[in-house]
Amino acid sequence: MPQPFAGVLVPVLTPFTPAGEPDAGRFVSFCRFLLDQGAGGLAIFGTTSEANSMAGSERMALLDRLIAAGIPAAKLMPGTGACSITEATTLIRHAVGHGCGGVLMLPPFYYKGMTEQGVYDFVAAVIERVGSAALRMYLYHIPPQTMIPFGVELVGRLIKAYPDTVVGLKDSSGDWNNTKALLDAYASGGFAIFPGSETFLLDGLRNGAVGCITASGNVNVPGIREVYENWQTPQADQLQADITRARMTIQKYPMVPALKRIVAHFHHDPDWAVVRPPMERLSEAQSAALLADLEKIGFTLGECRREAAE
Amino acid sequence: MPQPFAGVLVPVLTPFTPAGEPDAGRFVSFCRFLLDQGAGGLAIFGTTSEANSMAGSERMALLDRLIAAGIPAAKLMPGTGACSITEATTLIRHAVGHGCGGVLMLPPFYYKGMTEQGVYDFVAAVIERVGSAALRMYLYHIPPQTMIPFGVELVGRLIKAYPDTVVGLKDSSGDWNNTKALLDAYASGGFAIFPGSETFLLDGLRNGAVGCITASGNVNVPGIREVYENWQTPQADQLQADITRARMTIQKYPMVPALKRIVAHFHHDPDWAVVRPPMERLSEAQSAALLADLEKIGFTLGECRREAAE
Repeated sequence: MPQPFAGVLVPVLTPFTPAGEPDAGRFVSFCRFLLDQGAGGLAIFGTTSEANSMAGSERMALLDRLIAAGIPAAKLMPGTGACSITEATTLIRHAVGHGCGGVLMLPPFYYKGMTEQGVYDFVAAVIERVGSAALRMYLYHIPPQTMIPFGVELVGRLIKAYPDTVVGLKDSSGDWNNTKALLDAYASGGFAIFPGSETFLLDGLRNGAVGCITASGNVNVPGIREVYENWQTPQADQLQADITRARMTIQKYPMVPALKRIVAHFHHDPDWAVVRPPMERLSEAQSAALLADLEKIGFTLGECRREAAE
Repeated sequence: MPQPFAGVLVPVLTPFTPAGEPDAGRFVSFCRFLLDQGAGGLAIFGTTSEANSMAGSERMALLDRLIAAGIPAAKLMPGTGACSITEATTLIRHAVGHGCGGVLMLPPFYYKGMTEQGVYDFVAAVIERVGSAALRMYLYHIPPQTMIPFGVELVGRLIKAYPDTVVGLKDSSGDWNNTKALLDAYASGGFAIFPGSETFLLDGLRNGAVGCITASGNVNVPGIREVYENWQTPQADQLQADITRARMTIQKYPMVPALKRIVAHFHHDPDWAVVRPPMERLSEAQSAALLADLEKIGFTLGECRREAAE
């Protein structure tokens, strides 16, 4: 099973202008920053990216700009989720055409109570329509948003039918028992499983995961990488406790607005706090409390930690 | 408050070819059939229409074909729901450009747990971007699919801010208490409230509703119209009991595949049974049971009832 990605992957925040338009220039710079920090890949256009608050055409235009700016396509795993077979196909063809290392695939998320067969048929139809041997698809299991699961059995059916295409999964269920069941079933066969939060990184790596794809990577690649690189050392549990503490501090607040506020603060760029409705930016009081909480735990966007490690 | 619609509105089923492509020719014919049967309007591209299983471009192409074929734009209330402000704006501008009587507006349905303010900002941003005095927007409250409600208070804020634009609501909550609360709060001000099922039609009309927008309109406009036209007569409760019985018979099965199977049967066109994944068509056994159930209650796509009334 071909495996283009491992390590700490970041679902990259999308910068908007104060008028609410995607800002390609700041997006390119931020993607470079994350790769420089050691991100193993950029899962652009994920949930944290407010991807579903952008039209498909806006997402494709941003990807065009990243490629034109020289961000390596092999490092990109764009989210190509859509409710329709036709739109998902369009987004995936565009990504594959640019040579992206892979794509992250949501289930069709409008209709609820669909059968497993219906979801299987949707994914199969998209793969058949794309019709490219170059496609590497990572399933995106995030039932808190979609209510439509990629359950353990369904994942197995898709791997069996498309072993060179369906090569991995991001598990954002927040349920370690589900991640463990997937790891037990498919990791030894070379299927790449990424927990959707670094809180499960060490447990994941000890059970066959290949890394994690995590929102807080936007503000803590170096810290999370330390766990990834040192998971077999005696320090592993302490390193994991450090990154878990940082994560828990951030996720006391609405996650995407909080991460954007942190980036705004540490990159000295207030416009980073802009979100698109239906998300709301943090209030002044929330912002102050978040930054105070982070200061209490000595959080500094990873530079100190990176310098200490050098 | 301008009110372009009343009566029995139908969220029109979308016919697909056996290969899964939208079939504009059969769509035009079916829309004509429904208007001939007395539909007060066609809420094309709703949940029942599998709208979210089509790309925006596919929906706009179908609307272009309806208009070109002479279906009156004033009778059309296309669903223009999308998760992004940008895509919703594109779909609405297209509908308004064609002179559609109104549009049906889903909330942004990907992200869960959004604040009421966030949803308000989304709708307001779309209205401002469309920027047309001709826009008549009907809010689409369907929490079983979206998990994002248009609650009573939020609806009031939107009416107050945009009294000539936000002119009505379809309530597909399936919760009469919610419909009643909306009717009590806003019907007397001229705000058009449509229960999302004919099971609430008579109760709705008695409390200020202006009709209903109902999936089973695809197969029972004449029956449902009888309640609409005779709700102040002594026969009203019996007529309501008749259409409720038909509805209950159909919704024992997955609703969209069941309605498509009924249309396939009565229009003698087996391809009408085609759905797009993630929906699944009824099995042969389910189809046989559904048709037998309908025969038991003497259901005949409304012709008999219509003839009897003439």
